[in-house]
Amino acid sequence: MFKLLKTENAARRGEFHTPHGVIQTPVFMNVATAAAIKGAVSAPDLKELKCQVALANTYHLHLRPGDEVVKDLGGLHMFMKWDGPILTDSGGFQVFSLSKLRKIKEEGVYFSSHIDGRQIFMGPEESMRIQSNLGSTIAMAFDECVENPSTPEYVKQSSDLTIRWLKRCKTELERLKAQEGTINKRQMLFGINQGGIYPEIRIENMKAIAELCLDGYAVGGLAVGETTEQMYDIIEHVEPFMPKDKPRYLMGVGTPENIIEGVSRGIDFFDCVMPSRNARHAKLYTSNGTLNLMNAKFERDDTPIEEGCGCPTCQSFSRAYIRHLFKAKEMLAMRLSVMHNLYFYNTLAQEIRNALDEGVFEKYKSNKIKILAQKI
Amino acid sequence: MFKLLKTENAARRGEFHTPHGVIQTPVFMNVATAAAIKGAVSAPDLKELKCQVALANTYHLHLRPGDEVVKDLGGLHMFMKWDGPILTDSGGFQVFSLSKLRKIKEEGVYFSSHIDGRQIFMGPEESMRIQSNLGSTIAMAFDECVENPSTPEYVKQSSDLTIRWLKRCKTELERLKAQEGTINKRQMLFGINQGGIYPEIRIENMKAIAELCLDGYAVGGLAVGETTEQMYDIIEHVEPFMPKDKPRYLMGVGTPENIIEGVSRGIDFFDCVMPSRNARHAKLYTSNGTLNLMNAKFERDDTPIEEGCGCPTCQSFSRAYIRHLFKAKEMLAMRLSVMHNLYFYNTLAQEIRNALDEGVFEKYKSNKIKILAQKI
Repeated sequence: MFKLLKTENAARRGEFHTPHGVIQTPVFMNVATAAAIKGAVSAPDLKELKCQVALANTYHLHLRPGDEVVKDLGGLHMFMKWDGPILTDSGGFQVFSLSKLRKIKEEGVYFSSHIDGRQIFMGPEESMRIQSNLGSTIAMAFDECVENPSTPEYVKQSSDLTIRWLKRCKTELERLKAQEGTINKRQMLFGINQGGIYPEIRIENMKAIAELCLDGYAVGGLAVGETTEQMYDIIEHVEPFMPKDKPRYLMGVGTPENIIEGVSRGIDFFDCVMPSRNARHAKLYTSNGTLNLMNAKFERDDTPIEEGCGCPTCQSFSRAYIRHLFKAKEMLAMRLSVMHNLYFYNTLAQEIRNALDEGVFEKYKSNKIKILAQKI
Repeated sequence: MFKLLKTENAARRGEFHTPHGVIQTPVFMNVATAAAIKGAVSAPDLKELKCQVALANTYHLHLRPGDEVVKDLGGLHMFMKWDGPILTDSGGFQVFSLSKLRKIKEEGVYFSSHIDGRQIFMGPEESMRIQSNLGSTIAMAFDECVENPSTPEYVKQSSDLTIRWLKRCKTELERLKAQEGTINKRQMLFGINQGGIYPEIRIENMKAIAELCLDGYAVGGLAVGETTEQMYDIIEHVEPFMPKDKPRYLMGVGTPENIIEGVSRGIDFFDCVMPSRNARHAKLYTSNGTLNLMNAKFERDDTPIEEGCGCPTCQSFSRAYIRHLFKAKEMLAMRLSVMHNLYFYNTLAQEIRNALDEGVFEKYKSNKIKILAQKI
């Protein structure tokens, strides 16, 4: 159940009630693709990083360790030791981005595993079955994610297929939830809007999926080749047709600026590998701008990454020490940096919520975007 | 100051008072070569792992980030955030094991860096200066570590050189401690016994260095090519000539069995990369024997690595989950496994101390060695 607490223009402050607790929105979800955060960060560590929702991946967990294994072990929550909400991606995006030799048919997709090349079939029913075995809080619909640019003919045909698949997802998940032995009998389903960069196809698609009365709606197929302006433009076209009483999720986005711009266009949920990936390359976010720890000027800098930051890394360690760890290729460099960047993103979402609570989001937005562009 | 609390045959239970706190002996020191524990474990994490002493490396820290940098940052304790005792290896062993093109002269060793090949000189004075800059609790003497086997002629000549170097180490460290701006004015010095596998050379060397009245004495040059029996044999020959009122340190040793056997031969300090290295290869120690997590039988095993273990890993995670992390090449696998194995080694030392306190060490020893040989 989604409760809209406050709005400021298109921006929304809300609460999403799930079987694993209440999510305060806008929210940034922390990516744990294979049931672990890259950079030696565990699910219990996420608690210290102010994370509300962990995101795991259907495709990866189906291949390894296998969703049946996870089910036997009590589901993803037990497996990775995270008692908060978990959203599982449907596998749709990974089938298109990671696997080669894929063949799309009405029934689903035939593709080869990126691990060992073996042939796999995944359709809406398979994706739901896997996500049901994982027992996540929120399952994502299985969709086709088209590249940008693609022709309008192809995108229209794909959008219609994705709608037919979504209906099958809904039916199958309902069936699975009613079954005995199902881990999460209250598993939620989010539909995914597609339509490439064509506003008309996007809107038509959105209208169709809104009728299915799902638990939430995602905008998919963005950040896959189009410009940032095109992305914002698509959101603006689609947003008026997204149900007001359901959370909206902009998949795989993005920079701190993208998130703030997304919120101002009515988005509630975000996720991205950027904070952890950048951290692993010594690129760190602070409230005063970004910095690259490999820069020689930090060699003897005994201050934390960010003065006053509440993350576990900044509580103990200096820029000089973490820089040394990167130079010495110590894994600890990754862990300390990833913890800081995830904390930064989760704190950014918290700041956005506070600004919305206080009715000063627009002001917060213009200040923050200026600061974010600074380099330290 | 070393206080001998109790003995059982040659085995000793003691307390070593240092400027950074009291060390309960026998003790296993945890290796943090480049001021970090391999496997994304931080110094604050070591507190949770029952670690008493961290061991860092002079050679590595001299090359990177540079001991002058560490000094400017307040010394190694501030740098890595560890307020307990730190022992720094002298660099002697690494000069011989890691660097190529070395040339040993009376003044010291000319060698090339294993990082960038640049020419470096290190002698007793340089090693003391570096360790003084690091500000460790215990500095180790700069020695030549000969390979086993070497001819008795070479070993004798090398042992004499090491004694002359030791005297220079003592003089230089005294000078440095008296200087203004020195980080640790109460830095301690341990001498290192050498002499290869030749009991007479070992004993002669030990007698000579015992006269220098150092803070402790190490047995070096073992676990470098000789058999385990030869190693035990050397310890038995040398031990009667080691001062009773000073701690004894068996460098770079070893398996849990080696440690128990070392204690029974009068050793107080140990260090080894084995627990963390084995952990990074999924080889784990338990009180019921060792196990390899890659074994297929652990695929659906929802029990912790060791039932009843108090380590942070066993508090939360299952064998199945950690096995999955190894398979998926997630760094978190390393961290969780290293934490468990270090906790195991630190707990082993605790058990040994308890057995000595209760006067049942011999019984403990024979039971434990049987269990340690088991495979799970």
